[in-house]
Amino acid sequence: MNLHALSQDISAVIEKHQLADLQSLKNFLKIPSISTDPHYRNAIDDAACFLKNYFEELGLDSEILPTKGHPVVYARLGKDPQKPTVLCYGHYDVQPADPLSLWVSGPFDPQIRDGYLYARGASDDKGQVFCHIHAVKTLLTLSKELPVNLLFLIEGEEEIGSPHLKDFLKEHREKFSAQFLLVSDTPMYAPKMPSLCYGLRGLLYVELHAKSTKIDLHSGQQGGIVQNPILGLAYILSQLKNKEHDVQIPGFYQNVRTLSSEEKRMIDEIPFDEKDYALLLGAKKFVGEKDYSVNMRRWFRPTLDCNGIVGGYTGPGSKTIIPAMASAKISMRLVSYQDPMVIFNSLQEYVSRICPEGLEVSVDLHTASEPLLISKDSKGIKAAEKALKMVFGVNPVFQGEGGSIPILNAFKSTLGLDPILMGFNLPDDAIHAPNERFGIQQYRDGIHSTALFFHYIGLDL
Amino acid sequence: MNLHALSQDISAVIEKHQLADLQSLKNFLKIPSISTDPHYRNAIDDAACFLKNYFEELGLDSEILPTKGHPVVYARLGKDPQKPTVLCYGHYDVQPADPLSLWVSGPFDPQIRDGYLYARGASDDKGQVFCHIHAVKTLLTLSKELPVNLLFLIEGEEEIGSPHLKDFLKEHREKFSAQFLLVSDTPMYAPKMPSLCYGLRGLLYVELHAKSTKIDLHSGQQGGIVQNPILGLAYILSQLKNKEHDVQIPGFYQNVRTLSSEEKRMIDEIPFDEKDYALLLGAKKFVGEKDYSVNMRRWFRPTLDCNGIVGGYTGPGSKTIIPAMASAKISMRLVSYQDPMVIFNSLQEYVSRICPEGLEVSVDLHTASEPLLISKDSKGIKAAEKALKMVFGVNPVFQGEGGSIPILNAFKSTLGLDPILMGFNLPDDAIHAPNERFGIQQYRDGIHSTALFFHYIGLDL
Repeated sequence: MNLHALSQDISAVIEKHQLADLQSLKNFLKIPSISTDPHYRNAIDDAACFLKNYFEELGLDSEILPTKGHPVVYARLGKDPQKPTVLCYGHYDVQPADPLSLWVSGPFDPQIRDGYLYARGASDDKGQVFCHIHAVKTLLTLSKELPVNLLFLIEGEEEIGSPHLKDFLKEHREKFSAQFLLVSDTPMYAPKMPSLCYGLRGLLYVELHAKSTKIDLHSGQQGGIVQNPILGLAYILSQLKNKEHDVQIPGFYQNVRTLSSEEKRMIDEIPFDEKDYALLLGAKKFVGEKDYSVNMRRWFRPTLDCNGIVGGYTGPGSKTIIPAMASAKISMRLVSYQDPMVIFNSLQEYVSRICPEGLEVSVDLHTASEPLLISKDSKGIKAAEKALKMVFGVNPVFQGEGGSIPILNAFKSTLGLDPILMGFNLPDDAIHAPNERFGIQQYRDGIHSTALFFHYIGLDL
Repeated sequence: MNLHALSQDISAVIEKHQLADLQSLKNFLKIPSISTDPHYRNAIDDAACFLKNYFEELGLDSEILPTKGHPVVYARLGKDPQKPTVLCYGHYDVQPADPLSLWVSGPFDPQIRDGYLYARGASDDKGQVFCHIHAVKTLLTLSKELPVNLLFLIEGEEEIGSPHLKDFLKEHREKFSAQFLLVSDTPMYAPKMPSLCYGLRGLLYVELHAKSTKIDLHSGQQGGIVQNPILGLAYILSQLKNKEHDVQIPGFYQNVRTLSSEEKRMIDEIPFDEKDYALLLGAKKFVGEKDYSVNMRRWFRPTLDCNGIVGGYTGPGSKTIIPAMASAKISMRLVSYQDPMVIFNSLQEYVSRICPEGLEVSVDLHTASEPLLISKDSKGIKAAEKALKMVFGVNPVFQGEGGSIPILNAFKSTLGLDPILMGFNLPDDAIHAPNERFGIQQYRDGIHSTALFFHYIGLDL
């Protein structure tokens, strides 16, 4: 098969379908399927129905499968045991849209301006789900037979941490049996620089509660005799990292994977302007571990941050109290092969050891999710690499992602699948923020790359 | 003059007047003269009018004098150049009453239960102002001639820090010319243990603002490359005191007065049960400078506390951000002869020196008020000591007060007067809190002591 010719054919079909396909996506984007807010529960069901119907229109078998939370949309095309099966994962739920006043057009009134489609969910993740779906449509236009069997799992709780999906996967293990897992929910590195993400950091998120007296005290009358819970908590926080930004929890670095020199070289070769990036974030200067570059630090090094702190009087002016308590939220981004629960236990011991006299501190667990490291040499990754090279004319960047997609670990543990993280939106597409958008060209390239990926997968096996 | 006989006469008059006097006080307490809330501005004026009328009924000359804020009530009795003049200072404004739901009877519906008069302001300070006024009434009942000239300055802004009183005193210096200043706005040490307060701590109250980036960042995507402003601020806070609870601001202890061994002995002789007191505050244990007892630390040693802190996400659950900024309120209780502004400047330099890289921190001033130390050997104190001994049958305790009454410094600087701090409420009378109260016996003893004080002043000169 001449893949260059196929690529041109695919491109032609995408061109021909573009208007209709964008209209379908717009209709999908009109549904305010905000998962975190119970007021939008009907919209969640509407979005699931919309998808099921759309899959069926295109000739796929589709079902809405209940979970203990929002339903999963399942779809299937082909059952040929001679062909590999690709499972496409995505989500139809979206983030809340507020602050509404900052949107140029309504978050659920999709509009095209200057080559971008603006709406909540345009990039995250409805637009990228449609890249997968329209890749199927495109291939079906060219041929009745696809080179792969396809499964779709489109969930409705990604934006609230997929609380029910792991149990769902365990229960439906056989229904989702596949050899490859395609996920388009990460950005490209930059315009015209497609990327494959091969490392996601894990997350350990805890909350410290420090308490020293029964009630707030008068800071004049009692100042000098009791432990101040804010100062006590501040002391503990000050002992979590040293001046070189090394995390001080015993054993924290023990299982951290060492970056190979080839990996370091690869990361250093990705174009990156530190000054521009500091300007973008409004940071006075970057700080962190000296022996690692900015991209190494935010993708492949573990770190610790305080995400919130509160205690005592926080209104305007002054109030002369010694507060009874204070609390802080602490998150650690973990990398392979750190174990979140081992570190949680070590943190608990460490905090109780360094806790100042007169203070009681508890360490409560919010989240513990493992990091993910994906082999760059798998057949799936090779197929994605080739597809992206064909569409963009350049080799994709292999990059890490500092954030976490906790549910990917469940795919690994229940189905034995590593994800192929091939996403198409751009870093400035304002996901989770007002004026979320998806470039029309990104959208077309996404369809094109996905269609070619299916072909390379079919060829490679 | 037989002072024992006079004391018995005074007691008899108090007994006779008690019902009527309590009714007058109740009427005064019904006026919700909350100074901090503009909604109660009419009540402020009502309280001032009530006082002026009451003074005039008793035969004093009285005026309402405007300030740039709430008015001052002035009253005068006697102008004999042969007699000493006592200025009685107090305040007719009160703290807000919320939380209302915790009051057994309404804060402005004064009620007597089990020997206590319950109402907002009962102890702080309307009830104690009435001790002074009814002492005058009692003496006038016994004789047309008082042994002293009397001046009253009852202000309406004490609970908001007396922002206009210093200028007012400067302007009306001559009107308030006196040899003695009597203030009843501090508690007795314990039931049946009257006290004279001879040291008040000063206050330096600042706010630290720490900033590291323009906006909140995603803690996954950017974690490991920027300074975390909460952790940076926590580091600074951790450097303000060492493990021995010594404040680390350079020069902080340089001018601190050393307690004399006689003073130490005196303080140690005051009955104090550390265990009971820790239980009362709900403190696991007391902490602080090892070489000083609890009462020494809270009365005559300087200290530093954090009164409030806030930064990042403080709602329920987790949010994965690196906040852009964080802030903390810090107060220092100062003792003689520390200079608040010298320490403020040293703190600013210290903070900028220890500020972690990538962080900007400002130190803003809220309050700087000097400590006050009063000679225990003055004629006024001796007169108060004798009066208290006569009424309570025991020598008063000489104690410090950890809190501050900043306006007392203005009396010193404008009128050259040290206060005689002879208060009558008890430590558990819930001032500033729901169910504020004043014991009827305390009230009677307050009138009695004040009347005798006036006599001793008259005799001593």
